[in-house]
Amino acid sequence: MFLYTKNFDEQKEKAMAGLRKALEGGKVDRDIIPLLEKINSLENYFTTSSCSGRISVMEMPHFGDKVNSVWLGKWHREVTVEEVLDAIGKHSKGQLWFLVRSPILHVGARTMEDAVRLLNLAIGLGFKYSNIKSVSHKKLLVEIRSTERMDVPLGADGELWVDEAYIERIVAIANSQVRRFKGKLKRLEEEIGGLTPQAP
Amino acid sequence: MFLYTKNFDEQKEKAMAGLRKALEGGKVDRDIIPLLEKINSLENYFTTSSCSGRISVMEMPHFGDKVNSVWLGKWHREVTVEEVLDAIGKHSKGQLWFLVRSPILHVGARTMEDAVRLLNLAIGLGFKYSNIKSVSHKKLLVEIRSTERMDVPLGADGELWVDEAYIERIVAIANSQVRRFKGKLKRLEEEIGGLTPQAP
Repeated sequence: MFLYTKNFDEQKEKAMAGLRKALEGGKVDRDIIPLLEKINSLENYFTTSSCSGRISVMEMPHFGDKVNSVWLGKWHREVTVEEVLDAIGKHSKGQLWFLVRSPILHVGARTMEDAVRLLNLAIGLGFKYSNIKSVSHKKLLVEIRSTERMDVPLGADGELWVDEAYIERIVAIANSQVRRFKGKLKRLEEEIGGLTPQAP
Repeated sequence: MFLYTKNFDEQKEKAMAGLRKALEGGKVDRDIIPLLEKINSLENYFTTSSCSGRISVMEMPHFGDKVNSVWLGKWHREVTVEEVLDAIGKHSKGQLWFLVRSPILHVGARTMEDAVRLLNLAIGLGFKYSNIKSVSHKKLLVEIRSTERMDVPLGADGELWVDEAYIERIVAIANSQVRRFKGKLKRLEEEIGGLTPQAP
């Protein structure tokens, strides 16, 4: 069971059409594009969705309610304190959070063997939360993910619980996390070409 | 490849000996013990390590440096503001963080099919970050994990960046996360018995 993806080539073709569309619409984080292209040039893999990692300011009715969450600011790069304060200034109701998320790449693999080789490469390059996210005949999905993360409550219902000095502190920490995971993405981009198909 | 775990029964025996020792030493979170026992009573699974989820106050030289991190306070339950303030009072150097971590269970599975059935059950019960963590002949490891998490910087090098009112706020949020993941653990405990081996 589940040793390989059925209709892999057909699925990859579909995913590539979706990616081309997203690229044309400017919906792909720019600095992750070369990595996506490298992965998709490999015979046994294709990317389905990805985020190059981000800092954000988010308003949500309660923790975990993604559906009703609103981004007041979102950046796939280091930020300035001013940008974050601007975003915070837009807050009106619900919980206000400052968030850092590591890069996440979802990669379809042709066989379980391909999935495991990508998983082990990613873990070895510092993407320690990488895993196999789902396993079925329809898909064999590797999730590439790193440990950088912040979840900081800033206030609620228009009230701010922290001062500007605190925002400066957490922005500095967040930016150092961004530098760290960008470095890991760079290494992955350099090493991913080594994942050539093995002899049968 | 990797369709099943070699010497599964031998591995399970070893893991069970380790668990007995940990139980005798009082090293297992008490409220997760019934769940571990239920999983281990199943023919095709065994637990290797687990945490029932926790709130903690941690001092670390820099983010992610687990080796040199020190817990100033750690609780596998809801906490009071006083307990957290006591822990914060012990801070002297490095970065000071307030953390919430969801439960994590690592479960060895006999076959990939067993692994996937457990994975899908866990995801269905709200453990949305569950995944297959490693795949080899030596082990097929399912990680059961939920989304609750907080990573809040509180200060550094003896200096506190937030006030007591802020601590009250984040303790309230953390406690609501604890209630949420305890509920999920309870449901998993109720449902896990359904994972009987399938007909070959």
